[in-house]
Amino acid sequence: MMAVAHDCRPAQASRRTRASARFIVELWGLAAYSSNRLNPDIASEVSRALAEDIGSGDVTAALVPASQRARATLITREPMVLCGMAWVDETFRQLDPAIAVRWLVRDGDEPAANALLCEIEGPARPILSGERCALNFLQTLSGTATITRRYADAVAGTSCQILDTRKTIPGLRLAQKYAVRCGGGSNHRLGLHDMVLIKENHAIAAGGIAAAIAAARRSSPGTPVEVEVETLEEFRIALAASPEVIMLDEFSHADMRQAVAERRRADSGTRLEVSGGITLENVRAIAETGVDYISVGALTKHVTAADLSLRFQPL
Amino acid sequence: MMAVAHDCRPAQASRRTRASARFIVELWGLAAYSSNRLNPDIASEVSRALAEDIGSGDVTAALVPASQRARATLITREPMVLCGMAWVDETFRQLDPAIAVRWLVRDGDEPAANALLCEIEGPARPILSGERCALNFLQTLSGTATITRRYADAVAGTSCQILDTRKTIPGLRLAQKYAVRCGGGSNHRLGLHDMVLIKENHAIAAGGIAAAIAAARRSSPGTPVEVEVETLEEFRIALAASPEVIMLDEFSHADMRQAVAERRRADSGTRLEVSGGITLENVRAIAETGVDYISVGALTKHVTAADLSLRFQPL
Repeated sequence: MMAVAHDCRPAQASRRTRASARFIVELWGLAAYSSNRLNPDIASEVSRALAEDIGSGDVTAALVPASQRARATLITREPMVLCGMAWVDETFRQLDPAIAVRWLVRDGDEPAANALLCEIEGPARPILSGERCALNFLQTLSGTATITRRYADAVAGTSCQILDTRKTIPGLRLAQKYAVRCGGGSNHRLGLHDMVLIKENHAIAAGGIAAAIAAARRSSPGTPVEVEVETLEEFRIALAASPEVIMLDEFSHADMRQAVAERRRADSGTRLEVSGGITLENVRAIAETGVDYISVGALTKHVTAADLSLRFQPL
Repeated sequence: MMAVAHDCRPAQASRRTRASARFIVELWGLAAYSSNRLNPDIASEVSRALAEDIGSGDVTAALVPASQRARATLITREPMVLCGMAWVDETFRQLDPAIAVRWLVRDGDEPAANALLCEIEGPARPILSGERCALNFLQTLSGTATITRRYADAVAGTSCQILDTRKTIPGLRLAQKYAVRCGGGSNHRLGLHDMVLIKENHAIAAGGIAAAIAAARRSSPGTPVEVEVETLEEFRIALAASPEVIMLDEFSHADMRQAVAERRRADSGTRLEVSGGITLENVRAIAETGVDYISVGALTKHVTAADLSLRFQPL
């Protein structure tokens, strides 16, 4: 099932953005909570990043003759999962539409060390001015896609999906959620608006788990409801109320298996999620308990930027 | 000299933001290139982050009675260098000015594992809604401050300063540069606008290193000029033209020492910078060659988020 995420549909979406910078990433059936549509505002993210880098002007590019043309080649110095084509395209498009970017790989691909990613050709000054902004997007988002792929590969062959969280870099929520998809993960809720997630304090305030679920059905009809539980007793109360998802907090692996078995006996459509303390070392064993989702804060709260290099050649 | 950065002037600046969210971080004499003034637009960074998280509304907080009050305590689960007080304050201020945030530590402090960072008290709903946004800023910026402190400590006792680069997370350039200062580092140029940095291609286009420096003096009078050189021969040409800084690219430690000695013999005010391939393992040996600055991309292009926990208690 996870293999579907490697089919590069992100790249199809990003090609579309050459015509229109504001784009919709199509859902392709992998998203855990189904009705979410990613709609990163690439044009404004790029214009903000260009503004903070260029400010009143690139005082060094001014040393290059305005008529100078150049070709640049972008390589990755290490194996990685690519993510961010549309942000690179948009960076150079905003600086000078005469710049051409030709990609040799696509979002979701796994180029090897020293692989050529793209060729950039056009006026030298805006290529020099846009280089760092473009690479900052690509190295950041590819970092997220790459670590996600490692988690997705670790659970390959199980029915478990890797999910992201709301622990994201401020300002890059949807971009990082897109990167997670490129890496073979699925998206948890995009924000506080598209899913109810009842934690202990909400349950206390509403008069218990069952009452909280009932209140959520009334206050947000049609919105998926997830409940966090800390014991098998709370799990049974929640399961009886049929939320879309139950999050098993601090459960032992034995209790995870017990919850999976009880869910099966109840013939319930409720999905089970595990969250917290997930590492590449323990994620496989958790997936093999039979839970449906494992959410991993490390996908988006930490960033290990991909190591990229742009080689510039005056023409 | 680096110890000056531990005096918490960042915290003084951030306290000021309670009155005015858009703030100026005062220069306190550490900045490598001196005339830069950090001016992160905290209000708009926070409103963007709140918008992407809350969107059309927090459907879970709606389960908590509007009259419910709460107290929350924020702790760090690991030792860290704090950065981001002003972003946390601004998050809750934008959601509800009735929320009070009381800090027990300040930006630049090094709380131990399980230390209490702040107490938050006020209406329960907006505290719940703002928690993730506030923590995302604090964990991201504290991560940058923490790794910077490790590099600054590694060169402590030498005359060398740790600098950041333009390899930053898109949209967080000035926030991350502030975090670098909280960690005891200094800022390289903020962007393409506040310093000329002549690399090989600029020098080729301008007819050589000396000609490029002369052209930069003409086109950007009063702007600091840095030149990247790859050999001792290029270094000598650059030194004769007296740029503010020379960057030694791929120099051996022996050649770094040679450049330091020649700069001393020339009684030149030009500063020497080393960049590229810097790690916590090699940074001390490089500092001991006598160079003035070491710039480290890893400070801002990678992020290891601080591990924070908010405990929520209904009142």
